[in-house]
Amino acid sequence: MKQLFSLLLLCSLSWVSAQKVESPTGTLALTFQLTPDGQPTYAVSYKNKPVVLSSALGVSLKDKTALVNHFEVTGTTTHAVNETWKPVLGEQAQIVNHYNELIVALVQKDSKVKLNLVFRAFDEGVAFRYDFPKQENLNYFIISDEKTEFNLTENHKVFWIPGDFDSNEYVYNETKFSEIDNEKLDLNNGIGVKSIPGKYTVQTPLQMKSPSGLYLNIFEAAVVNYPVMHLDANVQKYTLKANLVPNAIGDKAYLQAPCVSPWRTIMVSDDARKIVSSKLILNLNEPSKIEDTSWIKPMKYVGIWWEMHVGKSTWDYAGSQNAQNAAGNPIPTGKHGATTENTKRYIDFAAKHGFDGVLVEGWNVGWEDWVGNWKEDVFDFTTPYPDFNLEEVSAYAKAKNVKMIMHHETSGSVGNYERHLDRALDLMKKFDYPAAKTGYVGKIIPRGEFHDGQAMVNHFNFVARRFADNKLMVNSHESSHPTGYSRTYPNYIAAESARGNEFNAWSNGNPPAHETILPFTRQLGGPMDYTPGIFEIKMSYYDKNKTEQVHTTLAKQLALYVTMYSPLQMAADLIENYEKYPDAFQFIKDVAMDWDESLYLEAEPGDYLTVARKTKGQDTWFLGAITDENARTTEIKLDFLTKGKKYKAIIYQDAKNAHWEKNPIAYTIKTQVVTSASKLKLQLAAGGGTAISFEPLP
Amino acid sequence: MKQLFSLLLLCSLSWVSAQKVESPTGTLALTFQLTPDGQPTYAVSYKNKPVVLSSALGVSLKDKTALVNHFEVTGTTTHAVNETWKPVLGEQAQIVNHYNELIVALVQKDSKVKLNLVFRAFDEGVAFRYDFPKQENLNYFIISDEKTEFNLTENHKVFWIPGDFDSNEYVYNETKFSEIDNEKLDLNNGIGVKSIPGKYTVQTPLQMKSPSGLYLNIFEAAVVNYPVMHLDANVQKYTLKANLVPNAIGDKAYLQAPCVSPWRTIMVSDDARKIVSSKLILNLNEPSKIEDTSWIKPMKYVGIWWEMHVGKSTWDYAGSQNAQNAAGNPIPTGKHGATTENTKRYIDFAAKHGFDGVLVEGWNVGWEDWVGNWKEDVFDFTTPYPDFNLEEVSAYAKAKNVKMIMHHETSGSVGNYERHLDRALDLMKKFDYPAAKTGYVGKIIPRGEFHDGQAMVNHFNFVARRFADNKLMVNSHESSHPTGYSRTYPNYIAAESARGNEFNAWSNGNPPAHETILPFTRQLGGPMDYTPGIFEIKMSYYDKNKTEQVHTTLAKQLALYVTMYSPLQMAADLIENYEKYPDAFQFIKDVAMDWDESLYLEAEPGDYLTVARKTKGQDTWFLGAITDENARTTEIKLDFLTKGKKYKAIIYQDAKNAHWEKNPIAYTIKTQVVTSASKLKLQLAAGGGTAISFEPLP
Repeated sequence: MKQLFSLLLLCSLSWVSAQKVESPTGTLALTFQLTPDGQPTYAVSYKNKPVVLSSALGVSLKDKTALVNHFEVTGTTTHAVNETWKPVLGEQAQIVNHYNELIVALVQKDSKVKLNLVFRAFDEGVAFRYDFPKQENLNYFIISDEKTEFNLTENHKVFWIPGDFDSNEYVYNETKFSEIDNEKLDLNNGIGVKSIPGKYTVQTPLQMKSPSGLYLNIFEAAVVNYPVMHLDANVQKYTLKANLVPNAIGDKAYLQAPCVSPWRTIMVSDDARKIVSSKLILNLNEPSKIEDTSWIKPMKYVGIWWEMHVGKSTWDYAGSQNAQNAAGNPIPTGKHGATTENTKRYIDFAAKHGFDGVLVEGWNVGWEDWVGNWKEDVFDFTTPYPDFNLEEVSAYAKAKNVKMIMHHETSGSVGNYERHLDRALDLMKKFDYPAAKTGYVGKIIPRGEFHDGQAMVNHFNFVARRFADNKLMVNSHESSHPTGYSRTYPNYIAAESARGNEFNAWSNGNPPAHETILPFTRQLGGPMDYTPGIFEIKMSYYDKNKTEQVHTTLAKQLALYVTMYSPLQMAADLIENYEKYPDAFQFIKDVAMDWDESLYLEAEPGDYLTVARKTKGQDTWFLGAITDENARTTEIKLDFLTKGKKYKAIIYQDAKNAHWEKNPIAYTIKTQVVTSASKLKLQLAAGGGTAISFEPLP
Repeated sequence: MKQLFSLLLLCSLSWVSAQKVESPTGTLALTFQLTPDGQPTYAVSYKNKPVVLSSALGVSLKDKTALVNHFEVTGTTTHAVNETWKPVLGEQAQIVNHYNELIVALVQKDSKVKLNLVFRAFDEGVAFRYDFPKQENLNYFIISDEKTEFNLTENHKVFWIPGDFDSNEYVYNETKFSEIDNEKLDLNNGIGVKSIPGKYTVQTPLQMKSPSGLYLNIFEAAVVNYPVMHLDANVQKYTLKANLVPNAIGDKAYLQAPCVSPWRTIMVSDDARKIVSSKLILNLNEPSKIEDTSWIKPMKYVGIWWEMHVGKSTWDYAGSQNAQNAAGNPIPTGKHGATTENTKRYIDFAAKHGFDGVLVEGWNVGWEDWVGNWKEDVFDFTTPYPDFNLEEVSAYAKAKNVKMIMHHETSGSVGNYERHLDRALDLMKKFDYPAAKTGYVGKIIPRGEFHDGQAMVNHFNFVARRFADNKLMVNSHESSHPTGYSRTYPNYIAAESARGNEFNAWSNGNPPAHETILPFTRQLGGPMDYTPGIFEIKMSYYDKNKTEQVHTTLAKQLALYVTMYSPLQMAADLIENYEKYPDAFQFIKDVAMDWDESLYLEAEPGDYLTVARKTKGQDTWFLGAITDENARTTEIKLDFLTKGKKYKAIIYQDAKNAHWEKNPIAYTIKTQVVTSASKLKLQLAAGGGTAISFEPLP
């Protein structure tokens, strides 16, 4: 009798029959199932092999019943979607959004709270989100924990950085999953503010490769009114669990139904190129909310910026807050970079070489004491230093048909920035600045908040919207990782949000593999303002005692303009350095920033990347190939070129004896005529690259 | 030998010889002394009797050596100041600032940190502050605790309210010091958000009375870039210690030297009138930073406000966020108060009766779901409801020479308000609103902050400054207690920041003693927008089932216009109620709001108050006399009137059978001719009052 009872119980508690959604070609499949306790789970298979094992879903709420178990399925819906949309700026003129959707409607037995799980299966990945419908039993609520798990099958190779709540500017570690360990990192890495919550917390996008050669990537899309998701790894079990960034008092997200969580994405492919070229993240974001987008344009720019990084000049005017004369006026050190005169020099250069814009950092009062002290009222975003004449500079730029790019460094004092934002934007409009670079170096104020918390995510998105209201573009640095919001607000033209080229000037820098990993990680979420184009690779050029250097060859710096997509591209080096290498500089002048088509010809995260792109509306192509610390030879078929047409290919490549460390500047340029039938043999130095422009011949 | 050694040690560790500062007439004396351990202390005596025993001074710093002991005196300075200044608006045309100052320069032995203590002795009180000079050894620092003590001598009677970090809207408790206990309070008191940190934490101003009849008052002045100070009472020892309001992560104040703390003030007198009339708090604030103050004017106003409190109409338009028709438009309930039509009715009334302004609450979208849910984006401060035509209303008001008063309810979502503030002010200027009432009902966002923390103090002051930049006046409700900042920014024309008249409409209300205590407490810091003038005293007038009522007679409501100083005065009742009592209403129409002179004729906190004031620039006088729950008879000498002149006195008084509870509306008005030789016998009902206007006869 007892046995019978157990058997009955077992039956009544059995797992609810699975719901499955397959990708359009059936390559990927996601299975939803409730556990006997009514906890939602999902699993993912690729080509019929499991890649994510049964993994829990659910959220805990503050002061409310956790939405983790005791659920029943009240219904399911499926949709098949295959549509095409046109990004305002992008890697492709058109983007296909093709997926099958499964919506599972759940209700929790006692609380009667309704929760929908929305699953989408694309051919290169799956995505899911929590959807909290409008209902009687849930209105306002606070997420205290997200239970989402990603239970992996094996001890993959992982490209990981610490799940730091305040910074994403790390060098990627390439280890086995079992070797993830933040405590083993050298944290003397140039990052000022670090908030690493645990030994095994890592950041997304998390690019992995299975022992059998399968590529997996875990990320998120459409992070709007929600904190960034980091992941806690269990290095024994190969599992990951969501770790949402808290606010000052430990809460994660303040929500009101109806609302949705961001998408959690798992890309899977046996071809790395499918992942690096995927538009899945953009597809999961809302279409542009800006109707007239005619004012959103790519910008290639130079700026008063790298000269501060190399120590030629300073952001500040007076050195320190103590440097005042008897009348209380700051005493100039004479090293200030953002002078009217220097700016005019940059404007002249931009005009001469056809650049769209000039960025000037250090133009405004406050840099004497701007960071490191959690100071609230640093900048007012409107007061120029005495040696920077805003009117004169703007008039000069206008006369030369060059656009000025404003700089808004907040030093993390976000409340202060928000209090001044309208006046700062008014100033930009008054002086015809079409875009600004924002910065968030330092601990956040309101104090207790992190760069990656819900409040800051909301701030970055708010700034994008306020800029849009004023028909202005914005490029944020030290912001939380983008997750495709630039589709919705395409004036959010770029972001840094990863370890940029600047670290090469004053820290251990970015190893040669760095730029082969970023396209698989940071750049999946949107354009990055990496600031390539450094020609004087070694900092000893400026100061013999310096050992820092850019960890690439010069030719690779050129190739980055193609491999790292962004509609905002800086030629970051000093303009006097470009004048020394005019032939190499020609590539930067020529390269496009907006594209009809992008072909990822070769890709292996951590090793190499080769990309060819066709200029938007023109039959010119550009190719970039980069490698890590290993020299590389490859042969590229030019079958992407229009058949029957001849093209002049200008090939910017590493000299034979080039080497990122030993001989980084050595390059050669050769020109040849090619067709779609041609093949090109590329020879990349250690840490090197090749950049090619293809122009159709008449 | 051992004894000798002990003796020597005792000598070398003896207290450092005292530094003393006396008030100009010598009534009050403050003594500074270092303990043998080098801790600064002070003590206060009144007429040579101790009133504050030796009490510690000092602050603890986060991650730094505490500045509490090991100090040495490096020098002392004294100043004698006797000056006069003119407030822009005020109780007096001129204010005398007369004190002796002692500055004790300290240095901490090991850290070498310098700290100055600044003591001022006025005849009605002493004040001191911490002054952190610019120095090598202290630049940025975080106050983690302020050690300031107030060690009292006896078990005084105390008028206290809980030291709530989020609210000052309490009924005063009148108990012995030993009976202070927040846990014994009935907290079902109409206050929405409460954050009481401990059983024995009380708020300042803390008014006390010693067993022998000495009045003591502890408060603070010039709270700028610092949190509010509450006080932790030791009910056995009769001591108080500063309890600074923390931020979200427990820090108290972020400072950078050079800087100063607010003043800590101790007023002492054997005459209660000396305290209630004192200008010590204003004197301790910075002079006006507004150069042209011509636009800062008193305002008497009516408004669409009390009708929501009594349930006649609502702030919201659609009842709830769910009330939408198929097209997604809100469905009006028909109870919305702030309609164009109703506003015009108020404008007509204001024009007819010579009021300066009309306040309209509930004019803007958001009230369906505005409070109680810690919601961030509630109001945008610029979008009117569909039935409120901003253009039409403004044009109508302009034609009638009436000024509109804007309403900015933030529901505590301060970041949201700051993000919209510039646009909100632009709207005010566009439609010629000279002033706004702000509101902070609800838990603060940024979440974790309190109404009384440094960030919020900074916010309230920031708003005052931004209003000043735009030549606009502001009246804040639910803000932290004012401490004289209205001297520095006189456009900060009033604040609520205590339990206002509104509580009488829907809670246990304000007991009859309430308005006799406020002038000794809340009002020391600046004008209060108490919103007197309720004629329909009992809420049963609107709904027979209601038992709430104003806890005064009608005549006392009139007297409050004199006893409660404010340059901003509301006639708070429904305008239709005023039309029923035109003779009583005449006093509200007549009473001035800005004064040449104010005489506190009689004062006993918790019992009664009689004040006479001379209109600024005119020889008319107004007198207000109020009592608590006890009827009171008194005789007032009119010797303040100009000698040899005759005045018409219109006396608005309680009818013989009047009683705040049993018969509150009954009043009589009599007119008589008086001179400076006259005496007037006043008969105040229980919870009653008398209001008198004196107009010189030709």
